[in-house]
Amino acid sequence: MAILKMAHLVVHAIVAILISSLAVTAVSAQAVYKWRLAMSWPEGTPMLHNAAARFASNVEKMTGGRMRIIVDAPGRHKAPLGVFDMVRSGAYEMGHTASYYYKGKDPATTFFTTTPFGMTPTEMNAWYYYGGGLALLHKVYSRHNIVAFPAGNTHIQMGGWFRKEINSLNDLKGLKMRIPGHAGEVVEKVGMKPVSIPPGELYTALERGTIDAVEWAGPANDEKMGFQKIAPYYYTGWHEPGAELHVFVNKDKFDSLPEDLQAIIATSAKEVSFDILSESFFRNATVWAEMKYQRNINIRTFPPDVLNAFKKANSELLDQVAAKSPFAKKVIGSQQKFLGLVKEWSAITDQEYLQLR
Amino acid sequence: MAILKMAHLVVHAIVAILISSLAVTAVSAQAVYKWRLAMSWPEGTPMLHNAAARFASNVEKMTGGRMRIIVDAPGRHKAPLGVFDMVRSGAYEMGHTASYYYKGKDPATTFFTTTPFGMTPTEMNAWYYYGGGLALLHKVYSRHNIVAFPAGNTHIQMGGWFRKEINSLNDLKGLKMRIPGHAGEVVEKVGMKPVSIPPGELYTALERGTIDAVEWAGPANDEKMGFQKIAPYYYTGWHEPGAELHVFVNKDKFDSLPEDLQAIIATSAKEVSFDILSESFFRNATVWAEMKYQRNINIRTFPPDVLNAFKKANSELLDQVAAKSPFAKKVIGSQQKFLGLVKEWSAITDQEYLQLR
Repeated sequence: MAILKMAHLVVHAIVAILISSLAVTAVSAQAVYKWRLAMSWPEGTPMLHNAAARFASNVEKMTGGRMRIIVDAPGRHKAPLGVFDMVRSGAYEMGHTASYYYKGKDPATTFFTTTPFGMTPTEMNAWYYYGGGLALLHKVYSRHNIVAFPAGNTHIQMGGWFRKEINSLNDLKGLKMRIPGHAGEVVEKVGMKPVSIPPGELYTALERGTIDAVEWAGPANDEKMGFQKIAPYYYTGWHEPGAELHVFVNKDKFDSLPEDLQAIIATSAKEVSFDILSESFFRNATVWAEMKYQRNINIRTFPPDVLNAFKKANSELLDQVAAKSPFAKKVIGSQQKFLGLVKEWSAITDQEYLQLR
Repeated sequence: MAILKMAHLVVHAIVAILISSLAVTAVSAQAVYKWRLAMSWPEGTPMLHNAAARFASNVEKMTGGRMRIIVDAPGRHKAPLGVFDMVRSGAYEMGHTASYYYKGKDPATTFFTTTPFGMTPTEMNAWYYYGGGLALLHKVYSRHNIVAFPAGNTHIQMGGWFRKEINSLNDLKGLKMRIPGHAGEVVEKVGMKPVSIPPGELYTALERGTIDAVEWAGPANDEKMGFQKIAPYYYTGWHEPGAELHVFVNKDKFDSLPEDLQAIIATSAKEVSFDILSESFFRNATVWAEMKYQRNINIRTFPPDVLNAFKKANSELLDQVAAKSPFAKKVIGSQQKFLGLVKEWSAITDQEYLQLR
């Protein structure tokens, strides 16, 4: 009986060990990922910070807590335009940024954000998801160990605040304007002087006439800068007709995830891409309604000779970039072909409807 | 030793039973939901069937197989316009349909799809997610034991095919046109005769002059019907400027789900809402490019007196609906207020950009 009793105890002990080891196995089958995301925008930036935070919280909700993403602002990681490098190296698993900040790394990255006189948000999304854009994005970024997803279209940006009205191309000659990147190169080709001034000094520079014009974003961001008080002409946009932001994921880390988490990340990025367009439209539209009510702001569209000069300069610059990078050539070519195919449809639907409404 | 051996065997047997029962526990903690979705569209309908199928497969992927959704077409459930009732009762857990099919059930449901001279897709999404639309949708549908999500904006629809050109309101008087629903009531008020004809007989009716005009959808669907061969005037749209489809979920069933699955369903619906806009734009734009190349189709916009008459009739009809249903009044009021706030922003961005590009 003693032996039987001992056997009984042995059974208990073994069972207890087995239960605890099985429990461990069950939990570790559902590993928890704690990832960090570096965003390019300072904490509290309207729309943009929201988008990164909602991406992170949506992933956490959908994974039932299996993936947690800590969002770091430049105040912490110190490199607003270094997201590409930090994600490529794996220093951060993820980033939220805009592809066109990285043309120095790879010229092909520029046009995944936007192109002057290019696609509207609706056209851009159609290109990404049905016109081959997403496949090109993955191709370009996989060379840099990054999986990139479109993650936020910021809608059509305004052309900037001007102290004086522009009635012809001549009025632009020699004007100093804060307008960065590719658009800055375009205006330089037609005789303007693009200048770089820190955000905190822009208002004073414009007030004192150190600069004549400034391009910033749209009413929701511009209003806080106060440009409407000192530059009464607000020009309609041509240079960023639907700028798309991106979520970057380190490719090695992404490839090592289970398939359900990969699907959740891809879908959350797409949700943010969609949502930020709604939020950008909403905030800009409502702030505009308020600004317009408070102050006499003159909405102007550049005259045809100015627009034609911008178009010509832009086209020449695109050719130069394409000549230097086969990948950039592919992206530019794909976008131009797509836009050629769909632009008449936009004209007889979106444009015509807004006119007749 | 015989006893020890027996004890050993007993240990083995017990352990084997325990292992298998623990394995069962681990799986049942992650219950598998097999749900059925009734869609309003026949199998193979361009864009629409895709959208329902991609919603189902995306949910399955993101849940790692914990939720499987079988999509049934009207060929199986026999009630294309009965999705509301089937989901309300729980006969189907889910549906993919358009809210405006159910105005007989609740007049407030109509305008969650679209309103003549109302919001564009971008405006509609901004209203849903930032202008109080989603909260109103949930409020109206929870009265019917349904959780509804926007799930597919089909972009701006065309105004229809006409055998003769319309140069004034007089040209419309007495014309017979296939145009259903609220828009049919609008044209009736200005002197047209809306008629209901089965899809299979529409081409012959138009060819023989039994009807003078037909409204269908957009090029991707219209082209297959062949209207372009017999009605050379294709009018730009006014009556469905961004029709939104919906996913319905039985509310009791939705409430009983774990939170991660609820989040996955909500996000998948939003992904589909976004994606179908891209797909609709893409397919209509590319089919239009091809149609236009093959045949001489005259794009026309209704003259101002016609548009004004439509606007007046539409406005009177909205007032009538609002007078009958407090909930419909709330929805119409919310949309009108929102559109009033944002429409100038659409004019100086979307409209202006498309003009200057």
